[in-house]
Amino acid sequence: MAEHFADRLWAACDAAGAPVCVGIDPVLERLPAALRGEPAERIAAFGVGIVEAAAGVVPAVKPQLACFERYGGEGWRAYERVLDAAKTHGLIVIADAKRGDIGTSSAHYAAGLLAGDGADALTVNTYLGSDGLEPFVDVAKRDGKGLFALVRTSNPGGDALQSLKLEDGRRVGEAVADIVAELGETCVGASGYSALGAVVGATKPADADALRARMPRQVFLVPGFGAQGGTAEDVKACFNKDRRGAIITASRSVIYAFDPDAADWQDAVRSAAVKLRDDIAGVLSR
Amino acid sequence: MAEHFADRLWAACDAAGAPVCVGIDPVLERLPAALRGEPAERIAAFGVGIVEAAAGVVPAVKPQLACFERYGGEGWRAYERVLDAAKTHGLIVIADAKRGDIGTSSAHYAAGLLAGDGADALTVNTYLGSDGLEPFVDVAKRDGKGLFALVRTSNPGGDALQSLKLEDGRRVGEAVADIVAELGETCVGASGYSALGAVVGATKPADADALRARMPRQVFLVPGFGAQGGTAEDVKACFNKDRRGAIITASRSVIYAFDPDAADWQDAVRSAAVKLRDDIAGVLSR
Repeated sequence: MAEHFADRLWAACDAAGAPVCVGIDPVLERLPAALRGEPAERIAAFGVGIVEAAAGVVPAVKPQLACFERYGGEGWRAYERVLDAAKTHGLIVIADAKRGDIGTSSAHYAAGLLAGDGADALTVNTYLGSDGLEPFVDVAKRDGKGLFALVRTSNPGGDALQSLKLEDGRRVGEAVADIVAELGETCVGASGYSALGAVVGATKPADADALRARMPRQVFLVPGFGAQGGTAEDVKACFNKDRRGAIITASRSVIYAFDPDAADWQDAVRSAAVKLRDDIAGVLSR
Repeated sequence: MAEHFADRLWAACDAAGAPVCVGIDPVLERLPAALRGEPAERIAAFGVGIVEAAAGVVPAVKPQLACFERYGGEGWRAYERVLDAAKTHGLIVIADAKRGDIGTSSAHYAAGLLAGDGADALTVNTYLGSDGLEPFVDVAKRDGKGLFALVRTSNPGGDALQSLKLEDGRRVGEAVADIVAELGETCVGASGYSALGAVVGATKPADADALRARMPRQVFLVPGFGAQGGTAEDVKACFNKDRRGAIITASRSVIYAFDPDAADWQDAVRSAAVKLRDDIAGVLSR
């Protein structure tokens, strides 16, 4: 039987020294000048370069599928190259795809993006409820993969829906949290954490406490740290008392931490990844 | 300036005789025996075959991206072949991708899937609120494209979130409808309809009236007709009094309407598409 995702994740985080993740969001206009060729080729080379810079520093990377899909079939192959490179370097790959559909279609997404040789974990959208998530959970259970369901997103506009108050007193985001917590009970590993985790933005620290209480067994994938404004203090509430339970992800503040014309762009990315790791290790040691 | 999506859509629906759409959800196990080759090749051949069978009968097709993405880069090329074939045959293409992310990532999805040579319209997810939708709307305005934001989905589990009651009396799905209606005001065409439409499942007829009232300018994309259980009577509430305002989509009941071993599978699909068109034309003539 495949090893449980959360157990694999914590082992990788312990080995690296902190539960952090580098987002791979390649945007053509921001790539190092040294990378040449067709758009998809440059995207692939940049993604593989980020993987090389991050390997041995952080436990996980999170490719943003939108950045690859932008270049169609070629972009998809670029994503596959980055995925393969990350696995070769022993990094856990969280495919940031935010997929979600009715069950039959979710099953196809799970088969394509997550099963077997696919990513180690996938972000998924919760608007369709449990039956839209179940096919993903089935694959996660079978293949030792993980999921992060959107609960509280890091963007300003997320409040318009996620913060609305229900007549029973819960916020919409909390109601989603309850759906995730319940479905997640079906796939808890030896560490006490579920293979079905939750996306909880670092820019919403006031909500993280309440969501942590509702989802004690969920791994929180925490975007919004760095470029989007979330601070090290902001992310503390995402962790449980065991100092587990969250993985903090930063993208632009790490992957674009270079002078575009510098030849040593990977060194700058590696230094930024080290800082990310040490910042979060610092938060957890206090 | 590009012609407005809703104006194009109504002209195509009038020419075809009814506002209907055939979903293209190719599943390997259900393809005609006559189609041979690698999975992605068979998926492409089937999709193109559906396009040929539907052309001249219905105004629009809706490829389900999950079914193509399942086969990675090759699957993506298969989708591109179906897209090209549909455009060559004069069909409006609604890419059923249900994408949605923070603004910067949504902009990449919009650029890859919708802009320029991309699909005519795209389904998008509303959980991240307006700023996750705006980049799609910007492309829709610029290039005469359309969007269908998930409001009320056709799957049984959608109720768990979408039917929850807010303290102000609205349901969650109605709150999403209000976000969509407001943002949609920014892109209304000559027909009075917005380029930002809404997905409203045929399996939720009791909700369609209330959603129609909240979203008078939204084109409703109505899935769930046929295989998922929605009937012709169920979809009536999705239309406005002008008998406009909705496009009814059926997938499995049309595209798999053949004996797998029959050589004339396209004839059977065409007959099922004619029946779909005539059923909906019948509802609108009463």
